[in-house]
Amino acid sequence: MRVLVVGAGAMGGTYGLMLQKAGNEVTFIDPWIDNLKKINADGFRFMNLGVEEHIPAQAYLPEAYIDSADLVILFTKSMQLEAMLETIKPIFQPRTKVLCLLNGLGHTETLLRYVQPENLLMGITVMTASMQGPADIAVSSYGRTEIQQMAGDRVVQTQIVELINKSGLPCVSSDDVMYSIWRKACLNGVLNTLATILEANFIGLSKIPDLRSLIEQVVSEFALVANTKGVVLNEPEIVELILGFTVPEFSGATHYPSMYQDLIKNHRLTEIDYLNGYVSREAKVVGVQTPYCDLITQLIHAKERLLTLA
Amino acid sequence: MRVLVVGAGAMGGTYGLMLQKAGNEVTFIDPWIDNLKKINADGFRFMNLGVEEHIPAQAYLPEAYIDSADLVILFTKSMQLEAMLETIKPIFQPRTKVLCLLNGLGHTETLLRYVQPENLLMGITVMTASMQGPADIAVSSYGRTEIQQMAGDRVVQTQIVELINKSGLPCVSSDDVMYSIWRKACLNGVLNTLATILEANFIGLSKIPDLRSLIEQVVSEFALVANTKGVVLNEPEIVELILGFTVPEFSGATHYPSMYQDLIKNHRLTEIDYLNGYVSREAKVVGVQTPYCDLITQLIHAKERLLTLA
Repeated sequence: MRVLVVGAGAMGGTYGLMLQKAGNEVTFIDPWIDNLKKINADGFRFMNLGVEEHIPAQAYLPEAYIDSADLVILFTKSMQLEAMLETIKPIFQPRTKVLCLLNGLGHTETLLRYVQPENLLMGITVMTASMQGPADIAVSSYGRTEIQQMAGDRVVQTQIVELINKSGLPCVSSDDVMYSIWRKACLNGVLNTLATILEANFIGLSKIPDLRSLIEQVVSEFALVANTKGVVLNEPEIVELILGFTVPEFSGATHYPSMYQDLIKNHRLTEIDYLNGYVSREAKVVGVQTPYCDLITQLIHAKERLLTLA
Repeated sequence: MRVLVVGAGAMGGTYGLMLQKAGNEVTFIDPWIDNLKKINADGFRFMNLGVEEHIPAQAYLPEAYIDSADLVILFTKSMQLEAMLETIKPIFQPRTKVLCLLNGLGHTETLLRYVQPENLLMGITVMTASMQGPADIAVSSYGRTEIQQMAGDRVVQTQIVELINKSGLPCVSSDDVMYSIWRKACLNGVLNTLATILEANFIGLSKIPDLRSLIEQVVSEFALVANTKGVVLNEPEIVELILGFTVPEFSGATHYPSMYQDLIKNHRLTEIDYLNGYVSREAKVVGVQTPYCDLITQLIHAKERLLTLA
């Protein structure tokens, strides 16, 4: 299959390389020049579950890629998605399938302005991968990907699940991927945001007095807005899940999440507008109150303006 | 008059020294041993509006002072008030007047457990003073003090206003000192807390998107609880007042407030439980919602636990 991977970072890079190794014709597009140059000159250095591989690959600037593709896999940053779609929309043919594996909320609405629902697959993955520099990526756990075709008879969904599984990455069909997307957004909307505001790791969050009630509040606000989208969250399950990240027994409790890395360490903008910020905005549209998400969003944006050049 | 100043820091020190210079018999009590030793050995170094003075003074540990006093002026940290009152309560005679000039909310309730309302004067001052080290204080502006006797014919109030004015510190009688205390608490509950959470100065707070609406929310929560205490806040006036601190034209816009100094710089506990924390607690008692104050309080307490040994 001819696969175009949009976003050649840790996640997109891993996905693309695994598919390429499985015999697919993979091309990357990415806006980061240094990354492109290195990929095209020397290929990727790919630490694949601890084993070093060097894999040649092809990468283009978004505006320079003019070919078509059978499958486009989107792995941009949330805030780059819309601009990227504007740039690459000539690629989308009536039969081009689009798989979106971004974190965060609101992407389906954006995508449906560019892609027919029967061509669109929304997904979520818990793969953990990181990038050391241009064309230098490491995957530490394949995690699991679940995907769902937004309309149609799901023949495409079955094909793409098979394609991904054949590459070695575990993938399953989902009947309710929007639930999983919202559930993961809750996690990020509590853990990533609070760790960033407090400049703490997960175990540091256990210092918040009455943490359970704070998590309950934030999750209830996500649930309120999810409800208006037809997604009914199991709030107690999600609260327990989140609390489980803040106990010393959790192996990743000393981990600083991606939003912290982005903003506090690298002084980059965060994806807050696709987490609590999305809940805040949508709440205003439907007239419900989400004070915790409102304040968390404002504090993260303030820190962005204090710590980045934005 | 025999005046006992409780808390020989920047504010208490300035007040006591000004009263002593005006001919009153002033004694200090303070729990900080190094401060006491230095005061008793060498007196205060007092930078009085830029003019250096060296003034002998007498200071005791709280539990070591067994004499009486005509007037007790309280200048402890908010969180030390109750323990201090327990220690010094033998000092309070039926004719002993007590003037409380602490920032923050809830002190009147605490004081009325130890002092008859006709002996109690609540006050507020906008004096600005700082402490460089033991017995080394500087006052940069006398500000203005307003005080009010909590019950009775206000003869005492008039006497004490006169006493303070005679010392050179501007003081006025107030008919509604609780209003002024709540108004100042709003200021601190917005500016000090947000500057501490974001580790920013006042001008940095202008980076918060939709700052006005955030301030309106916090002030409205203070107003909700103030109402239940018979204090009706002029919310728009207070919101404008607070916004005025965050514009570059304000001379103190680069100032880091006391809560920031306490926690971020000196890793000391804050007075949050007597600001937003008080609003949060009292809201629960009367059954109103104060989500912004709740979350702000939790975040400050979390930072305290991350940054202090508490």
